[in-house]
Amino acid sequence: MTTAPTARGLENVVITSSKLSAINGTAGELSYVGYNIHDLAERASFEEVCYLLWHGELPNAEQLNAFTAQLVAERALSAEEAALVRSVPSSGHGMDALRTLVSGVAQLDPALESMGAQSQAEAERVGTRLLAKMPTLIAAWDRLRHDKEPVAPDPKLGHAANFLYMLHGERPGDTAARAFNTYLVLLAEHGLNASTFAGRVAIGAGADVYCGIVAAIATLKGVLHGGANQKAMETFLAIGTPDNAAPFIDALLGRHERLMGVGHRIYKVEDPRARHLRAAVEALGREGDPRPQAIADAVAQVVAEHPRFTERKLAPNVEFYSAPLLYMAGVPLDLFTCAFALSRMAGWTAHIREQIADNRLIRPKADYVGPAPRAFVPLAER
Amino acid sequence: MTTAPTARGLENVVITSSKLSAINGTAGELSYVGYNIHDLAERASFEEVCYLLWHGELPNAEQLNAFTAQLVAERALSAEEAALVRSVPSSGHGMDALRTLVSGVAQLDPALESMGAQSQAEAERVGTRLLAKMPTLIAAWDRLRHDKEPVAPDPKLGHAANFLYMLHGERPGDTAARAFNTYLVLLAEHGLNASTFAGRVAIGAGADVYCGIVAAIATLKGVLHGGANQKAMETFLAIGTPDNAAPFIDALLGRHERLMGVGHRIYKVEDPRARHLRAAVEALGREGDPRPQAIADAVAQVVAEHPRFTERKLAPNVEFYSAPLLYMAGVPLDLFTCAFALSRMAGWTAHIREQIADNRLIRPKADYVGPAPRAFVPLAER
Repeated sequence: MTTAPTARGLENVVITSSKLSAINGTAGELSYVGYNIHDLAERASFEEVCYLLWHGELPNAEQLNAFTAQLVAERALSAEEAALVRSVPSSGHGMDALRTLVSGVAQLDPALESMGAQSQAEAERVGTRLLAKMPTLIAAWDRLRHDKEPVAPDPKLGHAANFLYMLHGERPGDTAARAFNTYLVLLAEHGLNASTFAGRVAIGAGADVYCGIVAAIATLKGVLHGGANQKAMETFLAIGTPDNAAPFIDALLGRHERLMGVGHRIYKVEDPRARHLRAAVEALGREGDPRPQAIADAVAQVVAEHPRFTERKLAPNVEFYSAPLLYMAGVPLDLFTCAFALSRMAGWTAHIREQIADNRLIRPKADYVGPAPRAFVPLAER
Repeated sequence: MTTAPTARGLENVVITSSKLSAINGTAGELSYVGYNIHDLAERASFEEVCYLLWHGELPNAEQLNAFTAQLVAERALSAEEAALVRSVPSSGHGMDALRTLVSGVAQLDPALESMGAQSQAEAERVGTRLLAKMPTLIAAWDRLRHDKEPVAPDPKLGHAANFLYMLHGERPGDTAARAFNTYLVLLAEHGLNASTFAGRVAIGAGADVYCGIVAAIATLKGVLHGGANQKAMETFLAIGTPDNAAPFIDALLGRHERLMGVGHRIYKVEDPRARHLRAAVEALGREGDPRPQAIADAVAQVVAEHPRFTERKLAPNVEFYSAPLLYMAGVPLDLFTCAFALSRMAGWTAHIREQIADNRLIRPKADYVGPAPRAFVPLAER
């Protein structure tokens, strides 16, 4: 038996059916449960999109109010959870902290059974809990590591605005709140991306919902996945000025390094999310510093023209304009990928629900190519 | 595009080549890097097997001494790591605690880069560190939750004996130390099982080695995977006496419940590891309480004869005799799966090394079966 080349990265291997997102990589199309991403990006709140992904329909006003009330109630930390944030290490990357915090919150969940249950109700319960609490946890951790006191969530603010408020201690302006909401909507779900898939592998083994989310967080940190937004911003900052984009990229390609925020396993044309992220960045730039956008635009120009990118159909991906958006919204660099996690919690939970509904151990095979059978030699004779 | 049935659990889908273990599920054969498991089970130390999996050859005396010295040096906790064990929640399942502790240790690793590096050297560095520290962390956590002070590792004891010592505060007898070493050897590696696969998915996304191990731990907790050893022991304890095995299983099958510790995705005959685990259990029974073995044997007898199991080729799996072994070695029930993790750390790290050597994003696809494209309706009109 030899390895089929297509199976190596499971590229184009269909492992399940899903009612969540339809992705057309060659046409550059994305929809959530039938709604085109272009319709949702600037017209829906993250809470509505999350409800859509979890329930299959957009909520009416009453349903949305009930869901929002649930989230608001779960945002606040218990005394034990607040103590957890103070006691976990203040060192390490934001994603390492988020991973530790979510894992610790599982230990503090009084309703979690010892081995954890698998049911639709449990997925919704834990999903709601973590969707609501993760922003509070990571914002509090960030403030504590900078010797600032955590800011309690504001029940009057929506999910997007409340996170920025807890992070900065000031209520964000409309433009920043809208930009971050658009970001959360656009990143909420994207099929069997690596982190979602890792979560489904954990659930497939019979693990509980927290395990699925922790596996997803651990995977999202990868620089070829969620970690790319931070890497893209670091690149833009290193470029420094629009004029430096072309020479910087030439030098980078000369060193055979990868330009982060460009290229996607599925999209071979412009990522349909990019234009909305860029519009949000433009709006932020009009009110503040326009330079991050100018640098990103200059890089995009090089990518659109340089044969190294055009020949391989490498276009700016979702991380490309996410980077200046998060930067201009004041998210610290090493929390960029945490912001991604806050959004993808919606999709992770939706996929965990689908996996539980039709569960099966996910276990591929490897082709053994090691030494032939050989005789054991005791230590004394080696 | 429709879902190919074989791809659903990735059953028989070969995604990579590996030099680690050769598994023949119909012949009931398992070897590590060319060495039959029957030769290793009672003749090799866990440290030798780990070296074999990481370096492709069994160590000579000098190599083994150097590796053991490295492990002994890394066993001890730093002041910050010791504080971490005291500050994480004492509640929750052992696997939840192990997950939090390993995630927190990553935050405290002064050599870990912000996004984490991917290299063979880094895999070996972090693998050695966690292989050595995980027993200390989980034993200390267990003692603290029972209001006992942690026990410092004993540099004179091997990996197996030292864990039992740190857990109980007394040096184990030869039989228990040998039994637990055999357990660690037998569980060290088993191809692309779900936890190992989850670790490779995280690494495939470009995440660091800690992320790979945390994703693996999260997945191992699953009751269809590592969690089965605890579930099997709970079943044996509920059965209570050998005579009750047949009626208990009849009642369980009548309720359409699963008998844990029986059946395997790959093995359709006796798992080659089972006989060595049973021999270790027998040795423990001769020195102590023979009842756990008597119950397990009575259950095995039912499984060998009952058409419900014989028709589906369901045989006792590796968890079946692992359960009484760990129980008789004094491992608390909710640390059974942690014991599995201490062993599988060897295989996880070996697979992470292989994944890094030929890395590629692991991202399958889903077949979209949700609603057709539909028009967005604003909230006010819903």
